Amino acid sequence: MIQKTKSLLAVLLGIVWVLSATVAVAPAADPLPSWNEGNAKQSILAFVKKVTTPNAPAFVPPEKRIATFDNDGTLWAEKPMYFQLFFALDRVKALAPQHPEWKDKEPFASLLKGDVKQAMAGGMKSILEIVMATHAGMTTTQFEKIVKDWIATARHPQTKRLYIEMVYQPMLELLAFLRANGFKTFIVSGGGIEFMRPWTEAVYGIPPEQVVGSSIKTKFEIRDAVPVLVRLPKIDFIDDKEGKPVGINAHIGRRPIAAFGNSDGDLQMLQWTTAGQGLRLALLVHHTDAKREFAYDKGAENALKEADAKNWIIVNMKDDWKVIYPSEK
Amino acid sequence: MIQKTKSLLAVLLGIVWVLSATVAVAPAADPLPSWNEGNAKQSILAFVKKVTTPNAPAFVPPEKRIATFDNDGTLWAEKPMYFQLFFALDRVKALAPQHPEWKDKEPFASLLKGDVKQAMAGGMKSILEIVMATHAGMTTTQFEKIVKDWIATARHPQTKRLYIEMVYQPMLELLAFLRANGFKTFIVSGGGIEFMRPWTEAVYGIPPEQVVGSSIKTKFEIRDAVPVLVRLPKIDFIDDKEGKPVGINAHIGRRPIAAFGNSDGDLQMLQWTTAGQGLRLALLVHHTDAKREFAYDKGAENALKEADAKNWIIVNMKDDWKVIYPSEK
Repeated sequence: MIQKTKSLLAVLLGIVWVLSATVAVAPAADPLPSWNEGNAKQSILAFVKKVTTPNAPAFVPPEKRIATFDNDGTLWAEKPMYFQLFFALDRVKALAPQHPEWKDKEPFASLLKGDVKQAMAGGMKSILEIVMATHAGMTTTQFEKIVKDWIATARHPQTKRLYIEMVYQPMLELLAFLRANGFKTFIVSGGGIEFMRPWTEAVYGIPPEQVVGSSIKTKFEIRDAVPVLVRLPKIDFIDDKEGKPVGINAHIGRRPIAAFGNSDGDLQMLQWTTAGQGLRLALLVHHTDAKREFAYDKGAENALKEADAKNWIIVNMKDDWKVIYPSEK
Repeated sequence: MIQKTKSLLAVLLGIVWVLSATVAVAPAADPLPSWNEGNAKQSILAFVKKVTTPNAPAFVPPEKRIATFDNDGTLWAEKPMYFQLFFALDRVKALAPQHPEWKDKEPFASLLKGDVKQAMAGGMKSILEIVMATHAGMTTTQFEKIVKDWIATARHPQTKRLYIEMVYQPMLELLAFLRANGFKTFIVSGGGIEFMRPWTEAVYGIPPEQVVGSSIKTKFEIRDAVPVLVRLPKIDFIDDKEGKPVGINAHIGRRPIAAFGNSDGDLQMLQWTTAGQGLRLALLVHHTDAKREFAYDKGAENALKEADAKNWIIVNMKDDWKVIYPSEK
């Protein structure tokens, strides 16, 4: 009986297969509907077709289809400053009652008076002090909850949108399109790895184990018979510029075949990616849309120059993208 | 026409679905054929059933089915010493002609005379010197090739087998069984991350991005217009004991629901895993088979004690495993 049923099953599966092939003749839906026709879109589609067509010269087996994406300015906006800094400033305010000494101590004193510019006057030293005061000292579980609560409620000062509503719709489509074609998508960001992980799966479809970012050190401890990881006020790794290929190697252990960025902080990642053998894709998002988003070249000058010289894809946000944010769909 | 074909397709798929359910009544093949019936095997099967049965109280969605495996002594043998040390010693011999000074310099002098014991007399300091002399100074690409060449040809001094033939057949079945049930399998080893990655995909089905291990620092450089990552003689991270939960958090970013080890170096990983909410599995491989493998408790005393107290699964290799190595099948 089972043998007979199996044979019938095989025949029916054969019919289904033939019918599926018939259905597939219907024109496929546009996988990148928020992208205007143009060089950027066509280059992406052509690349994906070439590396996924069996027996084609540029074919890449699925397990090697690694794509890495910068986050700030590539998957979501980054102006007027990195969104993680807004998080840090909000945390300073929330923690201020427990730190009366901050009233007379820079950079906290200026921050609490609302003078961000003055607080940042100390440059990297000030930023580090703010980050350590707000990102360390708790367990990883506690920090995850703090981030989740913040990201669900905090709003951008200009757009009044939730920060996770300021992700780029065309890039969401691109992520989904690559995954549908067997790619594994990773974030490789200068932002904090534990600041991103609590929400990247829901927002980008990228699970925590595929997020690479900057990190502080953690320490395993048993507290009241419960094992915890405590976040320490010590830099572990800065995942920016030369750090990006280092972070990719440490976390992924193989070279991407496609990489996506927007600034000089992504340049080395694109160099590392394109230096591999076989067909590679490098793409820069160029912020050219002052009306719908922000327009700036600052901090991307070297990357744009090299992209131009090496014929990497440059996305002109104003012309290449029909919409910027998902709400505009 | 397309609409009609689609409807027919839907009906046929329905029939196939019903028939598939009928076929599934046939007794399934044993997913762990090299495991003898007993508590270890039954506990594993029961755990996997509970976390994968939809609507069951212990159900875990696929994306959270993270399983972490120690390597040395858990997935492959580790006696008379860690296999990576054999690699390092072979490298010292291969590199000796370029280092005439080693003839008079410990620990290299003793090593080159074949006196491993005397070479190791300096303890961790000697080991570090040997590791740095053999694992650093080249690019990541060069190191990968060195490892691949070695692992394909080097043989164990006692069994004369290739080292990758000394993996445990029952654990290979367990890895495949977990993956067939939607688990993502990771290695979390004290061994070198870049020593494992070149062969774990072929041998264990675990891709490079799912390997966590100890590491040395690397540096991005452009050499003759080619971007490279250079391996530096500086420890980056030791993925052992308290380091294992730290490494899991850094690389995976979520807590495993199942963890597999064999020694005190794995204890904190098992503590961290079982401290999570919901059903968890912790398993220790106990080396009890002097005839077919090696018998020893040394270095596993604390883990065995805690496993016993907490009712973790302890695999008695002698009784629980029908075969040890794949060649014995």
